[in-house]
Amino acid sequence: MLELRLVQGGLLKKVLESIKDLVNDANFDCSATGFSLQAMDSSQVAVVALLLRPEGFERYWCDRNISMGMNLNNMAKMLKCAGNDDIITLKAEDGSDTVTFMFESPTQDKIADFEMKLMDINSERLGFPEADYHAIVRMPSSEFARICKDLSSIGNTVVISVTKEGVRFSTRGDIGTANVVCRQNTAVDKPEEATIIEMNEPVSLTFGLRYMNSLTKATPLSNTVTLSLSSGLPAVVEYRIAEMGYIRFYLAPKIEEDDD
Amino acid sequence: MLELRLVQGGLLKKVLESIKDLVNDANFDCSATGFSLQAMDSSQVAVVALLLRPEGFERYWCDRNISMGMNLNNMAKMLKCAGNDDIITLKAEDGSDTVTFMFESPTQDKIADFEMKLMDINSERLGFPEADYHAIVRMPSSEFARICKDLSSIGNTVVISVTKEGVRFSTRGDIGTANVVCRQNTAVDKPEEATIIEMNEPVSLTFGLRYMNSLTKATPLSNTVTLSLSSGLPAVVEYRIAEMGYIRFYLAPKIEEDDD
Amino acid sequence: MLELRLVQGGLLKKVLESIKDLVNDANFDCSATGFSLQAMDSSQVAVVALLLRPEGFERYWCDRNISMGMNLNNMAKMLKCAGNDDIITLKAEDGSDTVTFMFESPTQDKIADFEMKLMDINSERLGFPEADYHAIVRMPSSEFARICKDLSSIGNTVVISVTKEGVRFSTRGDIGTANVVCRQNTAVDKPEEATIIEMNEPVSLTFGLRYMNSLTKATPLSNTVTLSLSSGLPAVVEYRIAEMGYIRFYLAPKIEEDDD
Repeated sequence: MLELRLVQGGLLKKVLESIKDLVNDANFDCSATGFSLQAMDSSQVAVVALLLRPEGFERYWCDRNISMGMNLNNMAKMLKCAGNDDIITLKAEDGSDTVTFMFESPTQDKIADFEMKLMDINSERLGFPEADYHAIVRMPSSEFARICKDLSSIGNTVVISVTKEGVRFSTRGDIGTANVVCRQNTAVDKPEEATIIEMNEPVSLTFGLRYMNSLTKATPLSNTVTLSLSSGLPAVVEYRIAEMGYIRFYLAPKIEEDDD
Repeated sequence: MLELRLVQGGLLKKVLESIKDLVNDANFDCSATGFSLQAMDSSQVAVVALLLRPEGFERYWCDRNISMGMNLNNMAKMLKCAGNDDIITLKAEDGSDTVTFMFESPTQDKIADFEMKLMDINSERLGFPEADYHAIVRMPSSEFARICKDLSSIGNTVVISVTKEGVRFSTRGDIGTANVVCRQNTAVDKPEEATIIEMNEPVSLTFGLRYMNSLTKATPLSNTVTLSLSSGLPAVVEYRIAEMGYIRFYLAPKIEEDDD
Repeated sequence: MLELRLVQGGLLKKVLESIKDLVNDANFDCSATGFSLQAMDSSQVAVVALLLRPEGFERYWCDRNISMGMNLNNMAKMLKCAGNDDIITLKAEDGSDTVTFMFESPTQDKIADFEMKLMDINSERLGFPEADYHAIVRMPSSEFARICKDLSSIGNTVVISVTKEGVRFSTRGDIGTANVVCRQNTAVDKPEEATIIEMNEPVSLTFGLRYMNSLTKATPLSNTVTLSLSSGLPAVVEYRIAEMGYIRFYLAPKIEEDDD
C-alpha cells in the first residue's frame, strides 16, 4: 500500500505542467529513496528525471517498491482540479489498477478524490553516470526561459557557448541572427539572481529550441536553473525543488552539418 | 413610456453575461413589480428567471406593463460598451420598436446612447410553485463554479447528493472518476464563506455539466449561491442580487439509465 | 555609420507595435533632424509619420543621411526580445545591408544583439502642409481607443462630428445605432484627463473603424491624443512622444454615398 501526503500540493501540479508536454506516459516509481520518474520523450532527444525525497512529504508510506504507469496528460487534468494551497495525498492499494489523488482544502471543508486508471508501461531506467562537465552555468531560471523564448522567434536551434566572457546563446533564421550574452554576475541583491559560470574548458553545443521551450515549463519550480555542458554529452538542465529533490532534463545536442 | 435608471450599471452587464449563453432571444417584462425576464434555453432543459425590483433603480418609470423582445447577444454587445462604473438608463417610447440604452460616465463628461431594434417573441410564462425542497445548500458561488469547472474536465454529468455528511458532487469519464465533498461549515470569517446545508431527506440528482458551467457565469453577481433540490423536480440555482432581486436557474435533472 | 542609443528602449517597442499592423515595409530615415519614418498603408487610406528627435537619444551618431528599408513585422519580432527597461542601440555600418539592434539590460549582465537584413523600398515622401483645421480635439488617448473599439462592435464606420456641444462619435449597423458624446471638460485632477475642443466651424467626417482601431495601438505611447479635422482633408491623429517627437496618422475620410 502507498500513501504519500504532500502539504505543498501546488508543487506536484507544477511538476506535471513541466513534463506533460515532453512525455505522454511514464512510470512513477516509489521506494524508500523517494517518489521518482524517468522517461524519454517520443523523439528520443530528451530524458526527464524527477526525484521527490521522502523527507519532503508529511507522510511517506510505501511498504514495498511500486511502479505506477500513468498518462501524464490525464494526471495533469486531475491535478488542475486541486487548489494551489491544497494538500495532495496520493494513494494506491496493493494490486489495484487505479491510483487516487485526494485534495484537501486548507480549511478542510472541501475534500476531493480523483481516481485514475493505471497503465502498463514498459520502460528501462537509463543510467546517467556523474560526469565532469566542461562548464556549469547557474542562472536565474526566468532569464533562461526568456532567452529560449526570444531566440525561438528568430530560429529553430540555439548554440550555447561558454567562454571566459560568459555564456552565449545564438541562433539564426530567415529574418536574421541573434546573440545573447550573459556575463558572470555575483554582485546581486538576492543570491538567486546571480549568474555563476564554472568553466574548465570552453564548450559549444547546439540544441533544438523546441525542447528548450518545453523544459523551461519547469521554471515555476525554482528560481535558478543549472546547465551542465560537455562536448559530446547530453546537457543537463536541472531545476532544484527546495528541500525535496529535483527535476532534470538530459538533452542530446544536435550534430550540426551545414551550420558554422 | 419606460425609463429605468440604474446607478450600478455594471450589474446589468453582469446579468447579460450570465444568461446570453443559455438563451438567444427573450422578452424583458416591465411592470410595477419590477424588471423581469423568464426564458427557456433552446434544448428546453433550463429556465432562467430574473427579477430586478423597482427599489433598486434610482428612477423606475413604467406607466404601463410592457414586454420587450430582445436578442440577448446584441444587447450584451451594447452593454459591453458601458463602463463598469457607468450609470445605465433604459428607455423606450410607447409604441416604438426600439429600446435605447444610455450610458453616463461617473464624471458626466461622456454620454453614450445605443439604440437597438426590438423583436416579437412568443413566450409563455411558466409557473414555478413554491416547493418544499428535500435539501437546500448555500455555499460560496466561486466554490460552486470551481467544482463544476473541475468536474467537467473529467466527465459530462454531475451527480449532486446531499446527505448528513455534506454535499457531494461526483462525475465519471474515460480517464477516471471524481468526487468532491463540501461539508457544512459555519466557522468562517465572513458569512458569505459559509457552507450551510438544510436537509429534510437525502437527495441525489444528476445534471448536465454543460448547463452548470453556463449558469455559473452568474457568479460575479453574488458571493453565494443557493441550490434547492428535490427528487423529480427541477433544481433551483439562485444568485441573489443585493437589495434588488435575483437570477434563478431551474434545471431539469437527467434521468440516468445506465449509471449508478 | 549610424549609432543611435535610446535609454528608454521600451519606447521603440511601443512605436513598432503601433505601426506594424498598418504598414508592412517602410524606410526609416536618419538625418540631423532625427530618426523618422513616413509610410502609407497598403489600401492607401492612412499615412503614418514618425519623428524621434536627436535630443531624445543618449547618443545620436549619424554622419550622413541614410534610409534603411525594414520589414516592420520582423523588426517588431526582434524588438519584442528586448526587455521593457533595456537600453536599445541601433547600429548600421556604411554600405552594409544589415542593421543591428543591441539590447542592454539595466544591470548590464545581459547583452543581446539582433542583426536584421535591410530591404530596398521605393517610396516618396508626401508633403502635408500645415493646415488651419476646422476643429481640434484633445482627449485622453485611452478614452478615444475605448470609443473606437466599442463602436466597432456595432458598425464599420464612425462619423466624428464636432459642434459646440462637444465631439460626437456615431455608428450604425445591423443591430442598431450608437452615439458617444464627449463634452469639453477641463475640471480634472490631472491635465492629461482633460477633453479640450477648439472649434472654428462645425465639422463632420466619416472614417473606417478598422483604421481607427489600428492606429489606436499607439495609445501606450501617450496619455493624450489630438484629432485635427477639416472637411475634405485627411484627419490627423497625433500621439506626442514626450520630449522626443510624435507619431501621426493621416487618415482619409470616407465619401459616404448611401448613408445619412
